[in-house]
Order: sequence, then structure tokens, then C-alpha cells
Amino acid sequence: MAKGIAKRSENYSQWYNDIVVKADLAENSAVRGSMVIKPYGYAIWEKIQAALDKMFKDTGHENAYFPLFIPKSFFSKEAAHVEGFAKECAVVTHYRLRNTEDGKGIEVDPNAKLEEELIVRPTSETIIWNSYKNWIQSYRDLPILINQWANVVRWEMRTRLFLRTAEFLWQEGHTAHATKAEAIAETKQMVGVYADFAENFMAVPVIKGTKSESERFAGALETYAIEALMQDGKALQAGTSHFLGQNFAKAFDVKFTDKNSKLDYVWATSWGVSTRLMGALIMAHSDDHGLVLPPKLAPYQVVIVPIYKSAEQLDQMTEKANELMALLRAKGISVKYDGRDTRRPGHKFAEYELKGVPIRIAIGPRDLEQGNVEIARRDTLEKKIYQQEGIAETISGLLDEIQDNLFNKAVKFREENTFKVDSYEEFKDIIKNKGGFVLAHWDGTAETEEKIKTETKATIRCIPVDATEEEGKCILTGKPSTKRVLFAKAY
Amino acid sequence: MAKGIAKRSENYSQWYNDIVVKADLAENSAVRGSMVIKPYGYAIWEKIQAALDKMFKDTGHENAYFPLFIPKSFFSKEAAHVEGFAKECAVVTHYRLRNTEDGKGIEVDPNAKLEEELIVRPTSETIIWNSYKNWIQSYRDLPILINQWANVVRWEMRTRLFLRTAEFLWQEGHTAHATKAEAIAETKQMVGVYADFAENFMAVPVIKGTKSESERFAGALETYAIEALMQDGKALQAGTSHFLGQNFAKAFDVKFTDKNSKLDYVWATSWGVSTRLMGALIMAHSDDHGLVLPPKLAPYQVVIVPIYKSAEQLDQMTEKANELMALLRAKGISVKYDGRDTRRPGHKFAEYELKGVPIRIAIGPRDLEQGNVEIARRDTLEKKIYQQEGIAETISGLLDEIQDNLFNKAVKFREENTFKVDSYEEFKDIIKNKGGFVLAHWDGTAETEEKIKTETKATIRCIPVDATEEEGKCILTGKPSTKRVLFAKAY
Repeated sequence: MAKGIAKRSENYSQWYNDIVVKADLAENSAVRGSMVIKPYGYAIWEKIQAALDKMFKDTGHENAYFPLFIPKSFFSKEAAHVEGFAKECAVVTHYRLRNTEDGKGIEVDPNAKLEEELIVRPTSETIIWNSYKNWIQSYRDLPILINQWANVVRWEMRTRLFLRTAEFLWQEGHTAHATKAEAIAETKQMVGVYADFAENFMAVPVIKGTKSESERFAGALETYAIEALMQDGKALQAGTSHFLGQNFAKAFDVKFTDKNSKLDYVWATSWGVSTRLMGALIMAHSDDHGLVLPPKLAPYQVVIVPIYKSAEQLDQMTEKANELMALLRAKGISVKYDGRDTRRPGHKFAEYELKGVPIRIAIGPRDLEQGNVEIARRDTLEKKIYQQEGIAETISGLLDEIQDNLFNKAVKFREENTFKVDSYEEFKDIIKNKGGFVLAHWDGTAETEEKIKTETKATIRCIPVDATEEEGKCILTGKPSTKRVLFAKAY
Repeated sequence: MAKGIAKRSENYSQWYNDIVVKADLAENSAVRGSMVIKPYGYAIWEKIQAALDKMFKDTGHENAYFPLFIPKSFFSKEAAHVEGFAKECAVVTHYRLRNTEDGKGIEVDPNAKLEEELIVRPTSETIIWNSYKNWIQSYRDLPILINQWANVVRWEMRTRLFLRTAEFLWQEGHTAHATKAEAIAETKQMVGVYADFAENFMAVPVIKGTKSESERFAGALETYAIEALMQDGKALQAGTSHFLGQNFAKAFDVKFTDKNSKLDYVWATSWGVSTRLMGALIMAHSDDHGLVLPPKLAPYQVVIVPIYKSAEQLDQMTEKANELMALLRAKGISVKYDGRDTRRPGHKFAEYELKGVPIRIAIGPRDLEQGNVEIARRDTLEKKIYQQEGIAETISGLLDEIQDNLFNKAVKFREENTFKVDSYEEFKDIIKNKGGFVLAHWDGTAETEEKIKTETKATIRCIPVDATEEEGKCILTGKPSTKRVLFAKAY
């Protein structure tokens, strides 16, 4: 166990927080609920951004930027949105400060009160559809396929680094279409992009499905989500994609002339993932030694640590390390050399273990003589001697292996912690004592959903898109059901 | 002259606004002073970001993210900062909305008033140095070389798209050092990076210099800036780099133990450029036909427009275009094909001229027969026939030529509009009737600077770093001066 990190088995929540802080990913700031994302954490976020941004562009989307502030009145325009959406928002009421009379401090200038308060965006459907109104006249102006990378604010009362913060970073896609079918296809495509990203980059297996009506985004006709299982048996919603129908178009009066010169409201989708993904990434793979990163999202995939006694030996190791780094970089592998003489190798080993660097190479005088290196894998913690010859191919192969291994391990964990349940007794027992995903029949009503939630704290995570049709009875009411839905306690 | 664009010579300010709007770069939003950056404009900003981000990382900097909100009290901690910094800030006073009694709207919940108001960051020195306090104990923790890409808000009364908006996007570097010399070297290095970027990517020549005391950033001991000359003879400050001394370290009590175990305050710098660069880019090169973009920052460097009469011909052109595009892309050239059958070629030509695409290729049935293409350069508006063979090399060469030509043109314009002046009469005449950069002697006092500003609206843009030492007399007071400083009216 690494210094200062709680054990998962003893205090999962403390373990998570310890990793975030000790691996230098993020910390709490002086502003309640707002975090500082530190360079190492931000470097992972940049990797996430780059991969997703490419996937968005490959599917025809462009980036744009809309205002941080939204006039208060905009929120009332879409009825379901204002009703269903959390009202915990940061509100700007004034636009000027002034010196206090004693000249020592500053205060809000009461004369600089805004006529209409501005809300710091909790999400941007309203301000964006207010813009789209001016952009869309004809079917020729459609589709609009726009994404925005931005910060948003939701005044959460209980916050946790990455998982739930007042301010967070995210991307929000907002698309406009001429037909319902096209908008639905877009909604599905984007949840597919998210699933693809989660599995192939984050190495986190996810279940794609639709949300029950009560868990839908405010203003959406259908919400798709990807759900991942964390090591403590709780589910984490890692991304959502909403089919918004014509609700926002109606609220902001966005009409277009179709090919037959008929006037109709525009169809909409929105979809997003946030820095919450960092929480999923951390919790899915890490262990009691610290963070474990999949190679595709690691800020550096390999670290080289020299073992030496004299300054002369350090020079020799550095020279060899430079040679190895050139070979690795030529193969597109990112690598860092830690030649600091202020820290001992053991200290460095522990640091990179804590930071989840996928591969650590140690090289000492004997390795130099024998043409070897020692390679340690972060996922399995195995150490092995390899020849320097062919090092780039060796490392490249190992990185692929680690990426696959992490994914397979997570799949296996999920399999072992997914339960098909046919009675409410068993359901309650598993939710309470084991945790995990529970597949069970549900009668489709909000009442049943609510009652199960109140009694067990488990919610319907999603109705899996690939659920097999089968006859069954609701675990609570015994009423007929045609497929199992996914229950779990959730973050 | 393009449709709907004012002439530069008749109404420069309208011309600028027309280009921003008609080239689809940005537009005003429903929120006073906040703009929407549209996809084409944002794509240019992404190019700017990518180039700068690489330059920052190549000079050892890392990205991080700090909170959007800053507690009001932080602003009072650094005396010069609170005194000198504009107090036009967006102030968050409440954190919740509630439904109005009639159920039709929402209002601010008076019970959700913050104990201490939060300021939407106008710049982040205070919140960042408050974090650095916990990060720095010893010289081993230094330097800290961090950059942040973020949105900031300054409640400007008179706004103009890109040039001055209430919310804007920027990057802000904040570094911490063990010695004064190192911090000064960093300050100079970063203004150098900005100058390099402006000249080599934006094709905008700039003058590097220091600001007079009255124009310095609030809290800085020295401010370096790059100043560019726009086509209307006004200067535009395109980037600043500040040596902050130990001011913020003292304000936030950030001390470190040096190698000799002596405790000292940390030395600081900060530096930034913003979406204002977009304004400089637009104004530096564009003409009465629309936007002109340097190839290195163009979202697509080449557009291919097919000329055809029948659907069959369109298919032929599309096939050939695909072939050409593959060749161009293999050489790293970005290219778009516009095969829309809803617009005529003439319409497309005008559109891409307006949007400043560096090279337009037209290809019709006769070109296909003869193995030719027609190439139009946006910078010179010249059209010429080239062979399809070797097209990638031809275009690659032309793009370099265009990049150089734009820079040289801007240098020539600046040379023609830079004046050495030795009398106040001449000074006033040039500032009033010609505009441009004026190099003149100044006695170094704030009084003289202020008087000249009041009488002529010209300000000291900077004291050029490469100004030659020469004996002279202040144009206003006749007092001795050792070098000329740069005056101009400015944005």
C-alpha cells in the first residue's frame, strides 16, 4: 500500500480522494465546490479532449463558442426545462465593484445592479437555440452540427473532486435537424461515440441504454446514457445524449422551410460528457498503490529511472536513456526521463506507481553492461528484464497489452458483479450487501421506480438498448414486463 | 467590392464589423457585450490555440485549470492590483433560482444569498497565487510554469466583436520562480514567443517593448507588450507579459526556502493573449472583398469548386477533385471541396473570397481535358492556369508565398506609416491627419504622457526594446531624452 492512501476495502471514498490528491490530479480550491485541476490531471483531460474532439470532427461536427451568461428569462421559455432542471445556479446580479469608504477593501457597487439577472450557464440549450433562431430559415441551413468545449456551473451542495463539483469542464453538442428521424439517428450516433470512447480509450466497459422518463434530461423526449460499474459496486453515468424533439425550437420559435416549402419546427439533440469522466477513469482501474492509467490516456506512457552511484554513472545512464527515448518517440510512444539527483530511485518508483504511469523502465550499470533494461508494468506490478534491442517494439506491444488487460479486467469485474434477479427479496439483498448491476423486470411505471428507489436507494440506470425481449414480472408489483432494466446504486 | 461590405476608405469601423459578421466569424448575442464565436471563427481560434499551445509546451509550460469564481476579498489583497485594475466585473451574489408564485417564471431566491460575493475572474493572479501558496515550500518546488486556457469577464461598456467584449477567451500564463533574474528572463521569453507567433503565424509584424508606468498591468513591476499597426493607422496591443516581482507572493504569503535554507518570497510572471488576436488578424490583412487569412491560420487553406453543366460533369469533377484532395492532404495541406448543387460557382467564388480562403481551385470540363486547373490567390486576387501534374508542390509553394507576401505587405505598410518626429506640431499633425506609429522623444514623466494623451489621444504604446540610444529632447517639454518611444492612437 502506498504511503498515505487508504485501502479500497476499508474506506473506498477516502481511497478515491487520496488518489486524486496524492497523484496530483486535482484539489479543492478556496471557492466552495470548485476544484483546481492540476497539471498532471489536466494533461489527462487534454488527452480525453483530443480523442473526443477528433471523433466529433470525424462525424461532421464543428466547434463554436456561446456566452457564459444566460438571461434569466430564457430559462422559463421551455416549460419542462425550467420545471425539471435544478435551480441551483450561480446568479450574477451586479457588474461593478467599488472601493469601500475606508479605502482598504472593495464592495459591490449597489448602483451597478443589472436590470435582468444573468445565470452562469448550467447547460446551454437556451442561449444556443436563441442563436439558432437567426441561423436557420431553410432546410438548406440544416443540419447544424455544433459542439462547444466549456465550463458550466451547477451549485451542488455536496461536492467531490471530479465527480460532482460546482464548476466543471465539459463539452456539449447541440444539433439542429430537418427531420425527426435524422435527429434520433444523431442522438444514437453520439451515445455510440461515447461508448466507443469509454471502451477503447478509457478501457471502461459501458452499458448503453435509454433513461426512464423520470431520469430524463429536462426538456428531452428521450435520453440515452452510458453506464459504467465502479469497483465499489456503484454505477457511474459517464455520458448522455438527448433527443429533444421540437421542444427547444418551439420555445425559441425556430422554424424552417422544408423542401416542399412547408414551415416546420426544427428537430434538436444535445449530448455531453464532462470532467466527471476523470472520476470514472480513476475509479475503474486504480488500486491500493495509486492511480492506474490506460496507456491511451496517460500523459506519458513510459518513465525511465536511472540507477546509479556516481555522477559518472548518472551521465552514462542519461546517455543511454536519451538513446532509448529517441527510439520510443519515433514509434509515437510518449516518454519521460527522471534524472533528478535530489530523489532516490525508490522514491521515484513509488511516485510513478502512485501516478499510474503504465510502464517504468529502470536502467543501471549492470543493465548497461548486459544490454538489458528492467521493465515494470503498472497494471500487474510485474517486473521483468528485457533486452535493449528492439525496445520500441517491446514497449509498443506491452502498451497494447496493458490497454487490453485493463479493459478485460474491468469487463470481468462487471460480469462478476452483474446479477439477474427475479424477486424483490433477492434484489434488496444484492443491492444492500453486494452492490453491482442488477438486471430485473420492472412494470414501466414511475411509481414503482420511485418506491424501489426510496426503499433500496437503487435507481434504474438505463433500459439497455440490447436488452433481449423476454416475458417477466415486475419484481415489485408482479405486473408483466417484456425486458429487464438495469438497476444500481449510483454516483 | 463584396456585397454588403463597407469600404475601408469610407467607413473603417463598419468595414471591420461587416467582415466579422459576413465571413461568419462571430456575432453579437442576446447578452450585452458577449459574442457568439461561430464555427468558422472558432476554427481560426483553434489554429491559434494549437500553435501557441505547442510553443508554450516547447518552452516547458504545462496547462492547468483554476476556478472561474474568485472570492471578493482576494482582490483587496494586492494593493496595486485592486487600485489599478478595472472594477467592472460580473458579481455573483446568489446561488439559487425559484419558481415565481404564479408558476410562470423564475426569480432569484432571496434566501440563497452568498455570504461573500464571488467575482467572475477578470484575470486569475489572485486565485492562482492563493493555490501556489500550498504548492511551494522549497526551491525544489520551483519553477512552476503553468498556463491556463479560459474564459474571463470584464464588464466593458463599449464593446466590439473580438476587440473588446465583456466575456472573452484567452490564455494566461502564471509562473513562479526562485530568483528575480529567472522571472525576468521568463517575462522576456514569453513576449518573444508572442512576437514570434504574431509574425510567423499571423503574418503581423510587431514591435516589442515595455509599457510606461501608467500603462503597466496592475501589480506588475514591468509590462512587456507587442504592438501591431492596423490599416487605419491605429495600434493594437496584441499580447502582454508581466514581471510581477514579489508582489503577489507577498499578498498571498508565498515563501520558499532557498538552497541556503534562507526564506524568501517567490518571484512571479504572468502573460496572456486573447481572442482580441482575431481582431488583429482580421484588420491586418483583409480588404474590401472580405477577409484575408494567412495560410498557417486558415481553417482550410484550399477550396475546390467544380464548374459543370450536367450531373454527369459534376460527377467527373468530383472524381478529379477527390484525386487532387488526396494529393494535397498527403502534403499536409487542408482542403475543402464544395460540390453543393444548390449554389452556382460565382456564388461560391464570392463566398470563399469573403471568407479569406488563401487558394481557390476551379475545375471545369475543359480543364479536365487539358490536365489543368485554375488557381486564384486570395491575397493578390490573381487567377492563373496551372497543370494538374505536380499540383501538391505548386500549392505548397503558393501557400508559402502567400504567407510571406502578407507579412511583407504588412511590414511595408508599417514602414510607410511609421514617422520619426522631433516637434510637437509635427506630432499633432501626423496623429490627427495621417495616423500610424510615431517615434518621438519623451521626458519619461507621467505628466507629459498624460498631457499628450489628453491633447492628441495618442498614447505611448511602448518603449521599444531595440530602440537605439540617441540624444534628444522631449517633444512636449524639451527636456533631455535618450531614446525614442512609440506613440499612436490605439484600440
